[in-house]
Amino acid sequence: MACLGLVTPQQMHFSEPLPLKSGAVLPAYDLAFETYGTLNAERSNAVLVCHALNASHHVAGADAAGRRGWWDNLVGPGKPLDTDRFFVIGVNNPGSCFGSTGPMHVNPAHADEGRVWGADFPVMTVEDWVDAQVRLVQALGITQLAAVLGGSLGGMQALAWTLRHPSRLRHCIAVATAPNLSAQNIAFNEVARRAIVTDPDFHGGHFYEHGVVPKRGLRVARMIGHITYLAEDAMDAKFGRALREAELSYSTQAIEFQIESYLRHQGDKFSDYFDANTYLLITRALDYFDPAREHGDDLARAFAHEPATRDKQFLIVSFTTDWRFSPARSREIVKALVDNRIAVSYAEIAAPHGHDAFLLEDPRYHGVMRAYFDRIAAQTSS
Amino acid sequence: MACLGLVTPQQMHFSEPLPLKSGAVLPAYDLAFETYGTLNAERSNAVLVCHALNASHHVAGADAAGRRGWWDNLVGPGKPLDTDRFFVIGVNNPGSCFGSTGPMHVNPAHADEGRVWGADFPVMTVEDWVDAQVRLVQALGITQLAAVLGGSLGGMQALAWTLRHPSRLRHCIAVATAPNLSAQNIAFNEVARRAIVTDPDFHGGHFYEHGVVPKRGLRVARMIGHITYLAEDAMDAKFGRALREAELSYSTQAIEFQIESYLRHQGDKFSDYFDANTYLLITRALDYFDPAREHGDDLARAFAHEPATRDKQFLIVSFTTDWRFSPARSREIVKALVDNRIAVSYAEIAAPHGHDAFLLEDPRYHGVMRAYFDRIAAQTSS
Repeated sequence: MACLGLVTPQQMHFSEPLPLKSGAVLPAYDLAFETYGTLNAERSNAVLVCHALNASHHVAGADAAGRRGWWDNLVGPGKPLDTDRFFVIGVNNPGSCFGSTGPMHVNPAHADEGRVWGADFPVMTVEDWVDAQVRLVQALGITQLAAVLGGSLGGMQALAWTLRHPSRLRHCIAVATAPNLSAQNIAFNEVARRAIVTDPDFHGGHFYEHGVVPKRGLRVARMIGHITYLAEDAMDAKFGRALREAELSYSTQAIEFQIESYLRHQGDKFSDYFDANTYLLITRALDYFDPAREHGDDLARAFAHEPATRDKQFLIVSFTTDWRFSPARSREIVKALVDNRIAVSYAEIAAPHGHDAFLLEDPRYHGVMRAYFDRIAAQTSS
Repeated sequence: MACLGLVTPQQMHFSEPLPLKSGAVLPAYDLAFETYGTLNAERSNAVLVCHALNASHHVAGADAAGRRGWWDNLVGPGKPLDTDRFFVIGVNNPGSCFGSTGPMHVNPAHADEGRVWGADFPVMTVEDWVDAQVRLVQALGITQLAAVLGGSLGGMQALAWTLRHPSRLRHCIAVATAPNLSAQNIAFNEVARRAIVTDPDFHGGHFYEHGVVPKRGLRVARMIGHITYLAEDAMDAKFGRALREAELSYSTQAIEFQIESYLRHQGDKFSDYFDANTYLLITRALDYFDPAREHGDDLARAFAHEPATRDKQFLIVSFTTDWRFSPARSREIVKALVDNRIAVSYAEIAAPHGHDAFLLEDPRYHGVMRAYFDRIAAQTSS
């Protein structure tokens, strides 16, 4: 098993505006993407990888700064998603902050003053992202993807592909995801958003013009998020009540416990690179995702709506210690598929790492992924 | 069953400084307290109630503004903790913001300028509070309490009484508590503290002099806390994905979901009355509580340390859906007591309300409490 070497991000311009679920329209926009492996002559071996909250099109390989992609342990030559067999596409969603058009880019309505979108960037949904991804895939000359793959929010995009563009993919692989957010999930998002929006440096989302960044809010938002990504037992195993110094300092503001140091560090790092408006947009896309809503809150009916959805094949994967999107939420998806007699494989992986497990290298998890992609490859070459 | 009528808070001054676990000293201080019922001639029917994060000495009855005490459903004539039989004491801990000496009072070291303590108020621990409570109980002429009772952080105080002043009580009733905070518990506290401390209106804890209050931070802190007090299923049952308006507005900042509206309201209310420095102090007391630390992280050894502890009788109560202090944490306490052959009753109540259950009226929970206080009363009168 080798790793991909240097990969070069690409950029594609789309001049046709994208109609959005909200009724608004995203004017001409750019998408940043990367590809790994080679598209076969039949154009039948393409796999799209959808990213979650704070990731990007840089899925695998090393970028110019030497940073490995966020799913580099899964994607590469000889890896479970084998780039010797598959043509893999990573794409940055519009509204994100890693190269595709987003809130930090110039708003065409104010191009004269060079004013950026900021808080005026249109609110996007999972379905809007999927529609933008379809255009990219078409532009790459691919009529039907072998698979769409994603974890967490990326898994929601994979599900939305099957509901919205079922003829354009054969397999859906949705990992550590949910058919919608619970009240508690929304609550955590809302607290994070309030921390950002009430930071005086947010300036109603137009902080760029003030030369500041709402770092305080971003830090708190990331700290909250991070707690929900980790399993409680894993936190206890890794940090427990370990102190930073040998003795307590008895201070309300100094760091006493290792877990505090870790969280502050995560918050600091995140606030250095992530865009505050993107954070709001992406958490909202999470909140809004709810394919059952238009079908009487019946997920089985959502999967029954488009006849072509029934021919799709699904792999659903969850992790026992994930309390953000627990196995019970994945089982809701599986049940809705089974109720429709749609082909679904389900793996519930006993892994200690909570929601973060979907990004980590676990032999059982990667074994399941490898076996499933082997099956897709066998179908593709036959 | 009747409710207590109007109750009048009392104030007691302590001129002798209180030595603290940190090595610092709390100079002369006042404690606010309330009492309900009548102390019997033997002075053997007194029960001390310890409060948690945002509560006070106002445990039961109505204050001058007509507000019922925070445990009014449990404490009163004919109630599980029956004030026709027991003399009940509610006390506000120093460092809190409801009448006892706290960060918003004048720092004697700066009395000339009338400068308040603010962030210079000494950091207090659960053990320090218990020491202050002992002095109050002594001043009320009580040598030995029939029981010390508390929920959550209040339960930690009840446990600390048995470890530190075992001859001064007969029963310990610790509800919805834990022998220490987990890494995740500390993490939530730390995020809340960061939200407060990084609010520009915090001014390093000396906001009083600037005529402002760090409301943004307090709001976020309270919203985070509130999520951890509620069970996920109860949140789904109460709010689910219900929208505030009939249609989505597709906005990152407006309220879309009922749960957002509820949390914002809780945050707003809290920021109107709670002191920011108190929030820091009390969450730190939670973080620090860890009676096993001085005994090789062995809780059983902590309970074995003082011979008189072994004669105490314990009631430990937990709630199945409490994920802040789960039943597993209560069972750690029970196991440490059983290992020492100390008398302990344990009730694990199937209740849907998460950590908040300890404040609510649940027939099984109140049945357990009533039966236990009946037993204490029988012992007391014999």
